Amino acid sequence: MVPHLVTALEGPINELEQRILESMSAIERWFRLEWMEHTPAFYASVDVRNAGFKLAPMDTHLFPSQWNQLSADMLPLAVQAGMAAIEKICPEAKNLLLVPENDTSDPLYLANLAQLARIFNMAGLNVRLGSISNDVKAPTTLALPDGGTMALEPLIRSPHRLLLPDFDPCTILLNNDLSAGIPGILEELHEQYLLPPVHAGWPIRRKTHHAKAYEELAKRFAKMLGMDHWLITPAHAVTADVDLTTGNGLDALQAQVDAVLTKTRRKYKEYGIHEKPFALVKADNGSPGMGVLSLRDAKELSSAPAEALRGLATTKSGQTLTQFMVQEGVATRERIDAAPAEPVVYTMDRYVVGGFYRTHDACGPEDHLNTTGARCVPLAFEQSVQLPQPGMQPGVNAPNRFYMYGVVARLAMLASSYELEATDPEMEISD
Amino acid sequence: MVPHLVTALEGPINELEQRILESMSAIERWFRLEWMEHTPAFYASVDVRNAGFKLAPMDTHLFPSQWNQLSADMLPLAVQAGMAAIEKICPEAKNLLLVPENDTSDPLYLANLAQLARIFNMAGLNVRLGSISNDVKAPTTLALPDGGTMALEPLIRSPHRLLLPDFDPCTILLNNDLSAGIPGILEELHEQYLLPPVHAGWPIRRKTHHAKAYEELAKRFAKMLGMDHWLITPAHAVTADVDLTTGNGLDALQAQVDAVLTKTRRKYKEYGIHEKPFALVKADNGSPGMGVLSLRDAKELSSAPAEALRGLATTKSGQTLTQFMVQEGVATRERIDAAPAEPVVYTMDRYVVGGFYRTHDACGPEDHLNTTGARCVPLAFEQSVQLPQPGMQPGVNAPNRFYMYGVVARLAMLASSYELEATDPEMEISD
Repeated sequence: MVPHLVTALEGPINELEQRILESMSAIERWFRLEWMEHTPAFYASVDVRNAGFKLAPMDTHLFPSQWNQLSADMLPLAVQAGMAAIEKICPEAKNLLLVPENDTSDPLYLANLAQLARIFNMAGLNVRLGSISNDVKAPTTLALPDGGTMALEPLIRSPHRLLLPDFDPCTILLNNDLSAGIPGILEELHEQYLLPPVHAGWPIRRKTHHAKAYEELAKRFAKMLGMDHWLITPAHAVTADVDLTTGNGLDALQAQVDAVLTKTRRKYKEYGIHEKPFALVKADNGSPGMGVLSLRDAKELSSAPAEALRGLATTKSGQTLTQFMVQEGVATRERIDAAPAEPVVYTMDRYVVGGFYRTHDACGPEDHLNTTGARCVPLAFEQSVQLPQPGMQPGVNAPNRFYMYGVVARLAMLASSYELEATDPEMEISD
Repeated sequence: MVPHLVTALEGPINELEQRILESMSAIERWFRLEWMEHTPAFYASVDVRNAGFKLAPMDTHLFPSQWNQLSADMLPLAVQAGMAAIEKICPEAKNLLLVPENDTSDPLYLANLAQLARIFNMAGLNVRLGSISNDVKAPTTLALPDGGTMALEPLIRSPHRLLLPDFDPCTILLNNDLSAGIPGILEELHEQYLLPPVHAGWPIRRKTHHAKAYEELAKRFAKMLGMDHWLITPAHAVTADVDLTTGNGLDALQAQVDAVLTKTRRKYKEYGIHEKPFALVKADNGSPGMGVLSLRDAKELSSAPAEALRGLATTKSGQTLTQFMVQEGVATRERIDAAPAEPVVYTMDRYVVGGFYRTHDACGPEDHLNTTGARCVPLAFEQSVQLPQPGMQPGVNAPNRFYMYGVVARLAMLASSYELEATDPEMEISD
């Protein structure tokens, strides 16, 4: 189920969208069967791009922030989904420990934390914030943009548990992607549920593991719908041991860019798409704030400014990354006012609970929008009295054009389930 | 979790409401623990009365209609809850068979059916309508008020299953309270899930079983909150073998009315309530459409018009009922315009998914409102940007005054779970 949100889309429904809308019952059942075998990522946000002829998840965030950017109407959906999630993990839970990013200086990030706390508070949990940052040595008061406050406390580690004073949580929710490294305090917590697990953090996670899991799922999904999986999948490749500062290994990366562009060009030809393909280069374990290179030709890589290459490879904490994902670029056809926009879809447990458009006035439709200057435009519920019901009242209701975004986002979230199962270090040990 | 809906309530929050709002985390956890042991009624609607000093569920409908009266915004909540319910019952389900009331002549009832079909369709099921009425011998087209149509088909019974042509459902959802009797076609369906179960239908169900289960739950719940359970419980009593046409057994009924009034008077005195108690008489297994007597004195029973007594005891199909529940009357303090109004709260699986106000221009605040001429006023979502978060931002947000209704309604729904467990004929056999 995907709530009916107002999209910026105009114009007729194309073949791809029509196929997805018509197959709703089959799609929902397909997901239901998948959830019998796999555990959903606790929460996620998925950046989706809609090129018209093609729809694709470009980034799947397993420590989603910006919950404050969802419209207030969405809150009950998130709370309901949060209840469902908690109930499965730890039904007797009283307390939830929320671990924020180490840097809590951004008021918008604080608004995100307040919204997460609100969701789980309404789901029946006492929520407190515990920091893994070494800088938080005593309880601190965080001033929220709306005038309220929240307390941020240093964590206490007992031999087997993470605690706060008078607060022994059964579940610890990470809203910290661990890009600064995995602190020892989070290790060996066998008595508490740490969600998402540590191996979902960037020190261990790889974008290309996710892309691979997504591609395999998309193949199965597309087969069910009788369509080409490329229509919902960006091609990808991986290159290791690239030192962008010295240029060592750049040729291998260039070869992969070329391969992705060639593959895309072939597909464009097959579908009669008269556009010029482009490819993105992202650090395979780079966090969202890091640079992304967009290339129309592999050769552009060798002439790229040193600063751009540094941004691509250097983490916030100054570490240099050497493994890169090449990803087929997908332009966005959606616009908010004149600016290009991409839907960002939020999931909790197995449910789509809302979304917003990310838009950027200084960007073009092929640009990466998740950069400084991006704005969020919350998606409102469609206010039409009735919602679409395939097969029952054709033509009477406006179709839910947000539905396809919810489908692709859930596919990406499900791919994360597969990805985290495959990369679970405890599973590997037991093999 | 209870969505934040706009209530008609004005004025300050009284002690009872305050206690419930403050205890949200504990209440939500209490419910979560209950659901570990008990299965929620598949769906329900609960008529709630708020007298200010007291809050009480007056009727719990286990075959709720009027789903069309919920605002469109609520639909995603119902769909999400429906997905959760189906997933637990029959995760591989493709098809849902919906069994409507035998009488499908009311366009508003058809709109209810269309809305139920829409909810489960969006939850990923093919929904078809199969009738248990003997009058439906061939497929019939039902014209919906919005111009659409739905097909109503006669059921096919195989030795162990209920079917429609090319349609073998795993779950059968009854939206028929079986007041016309339990048809043989619904018996011995051990291969399919029939929900709610047959013993939730009026031929077997008794309001006083429900009231007893509710009272015991309310005692436990009130103990947790440190309050008197009477504040959320209408007193009740039962009298069997009353023939209202001849007057046989009327004295016993009168004695029970007197007992309930006396108990209520004592409580009013204890709480300093300067109002005159009243009591309701309802057939113990009477369906919602039947008459209800409201009495301020037990003697009024002997002087009640013959027509009113007949309305109290006679079912739509002409059967005469002889067992009655006496229920403490609870006035409603809420108003829509000038008319008295009572919230009707809808649940699906364990979730509150919406509600509306039932109001009646020709009624007073003590009258039973569920009669001819009642109107439904959908409850909208509160549009305030932020929702209440106890303990975190006191005073900043408007409290969710719908919350207490959601709590009492879920208590009543949970009481139905206990009630249906206690009255399950298969459980009795295994004892």
